[in-house]
Amino acid sequence: MPPTGLKPARAFSAEERTAVYRAIHERRDVRGQFLPDPIADEVLTRILAAAHSSPSVGLSQPWSFIIIRDGAIRSEIRAAFAGANDEARQMFSGGRLALYSALKLQGISEAALNICVTCDRMRGGPVVLGRTHDNDTDLYSTACAVQNLWLAARAEGIGVGWVSIFRQDDLRRILGIPAHVVPVAYLCLGHVRELFDGPELEARGWGQREPLDDMVFQDRWGGRP
Amino acid sequence: MPPTGLKPARAFSAEERTAVYRAIHERRDVRGQFLPDPIADEVLTRILAAAHSSPSVGLSQPWSFIIIRDGAIRSEIRAAFAGANDEARQMFSGGRLALYSALKLQGISEAALNICVTCDRMRGGPVVLGRTHDNDTDLYSTACAVQNLWLAARAEGIGVGWVSIFRQDDLRRILGIPAHVVPVAYLCLGHVRELFDGPELEARGWGQREPLDDMVFQDRWGGRP
Repeated sequence: MPPTGLKPARAFSAEERTAVYRAIHERRDVRGQFLPDPIADEVLTRILAAAHSSPSVGLSQPWSFIIIRDGAIRSEIRAAFAGANDEARQMFSGGRLALYSALKLQGISEAALNICVTCDRMRGGPVVLGRTHDNDTDLYSTACAVQNLWLAARAEGIGVGWVSIFRQDDLRRILGIPAHVVPVAYLCLGHVRELFDGPELEARGWGQREPLDDMVFQDRWGGRP
Repeated sequence: MPPTGLKPARAFSAEERTAVYRAIHERRDVRGQFLPDPIADEVLTRILAAAHSSPSVGLSQPWSFIIIRDGAIRSEIRAAFAGANDEARQMFSGGRLALYSALKLQGISEAALNICVTCDRMRGGPVVLGRTHDNDTDLYSTACAVQNLWLAARAEGIGVGWVSIFRQDDLRRILGIPAHVVPVAYLCLGHVRELFDGPELEARGWGQREPLDDMVFQDRWGGRP
């Protein structure tokens, strides 16, 4: 078992590091800023290659990417969203209901294209290295791929919006997704000229970012320095 | 509901874009290349801030980060890994068993520090915007935070290894994690001088990267151009 392939870990310059942090901190969940311009094939390929370059448990690469451009399919998806969102709305009341109802939560039809990112729970066979004690690690791998895709898109000037208000069975039916495959993320992608400078839900008064310090513990849950 | 906070989406230069792709494509799952050097506090803070800047369903920010430096706790964690890995090993046979047994799958004690990234399933209250129809979206948010952390670390010259071979109850017991909180990722972090130039599991002959084209469908599952 020779450790072939070990190479010097080239350092990032200060400028490169700053660029990585720019993508991370300027990434937004886009709902209303999509331009109608198409996404060039080579740009889409780079974005998908970034997703495919994600870590995956046991190198199982459980993801697939369904690129949705067809207008009729998008109309069905939008109707599925509307049905689920009617159910979602009823879970809120009072001022939250009014605010929820006023939020734009998807750009399915305005975006240049949509991508459904799926996780095949059977890919890699019955025993996957690293998935023996946590069956959800393949879903986590797929979510990591979504984040890679999102950051690459930001660097390409493409906005991404993650729409999660669907009954899974609707997505499966409309897109022909088999039962053993989970639709992890439904994404809307398109060029953007403007972005919010913080989370849109914060700008809209729905919630706010919490201080990082509140999320950090030392050595054990609840541990403070 | 004024759309405050919309700003021009500044384009990334070619150099910035290349830097983002560098982090994405040069990120590795590190097990054996950790140097003993400590991670500076300001570097760790930048990496954690990158994780905390991830998208989260309904802005629920369900993650916490337990930074583990204590040697005794790490010994317990390593023992928990060893116990689970003995169970994992028995799921393979023949040549795969021999190869599995020869793989180094963790750097818990050699790494400068460990981080357990958790997901609080109750954060954000009983109804979270966007989580009404897929209860796992908070876990996906947390996995996105792991990926942000990983890419930031790569840009900082820090290697990250995700260890997933644990019984969840062991992690909960050792780290005092409450029952409603899921340990999503156990990460080992440390400076690295060398990295594999592709997935280590490929270099070791365990698996191989699949062509991106095999993972891309058009308009519906199985759809080809």
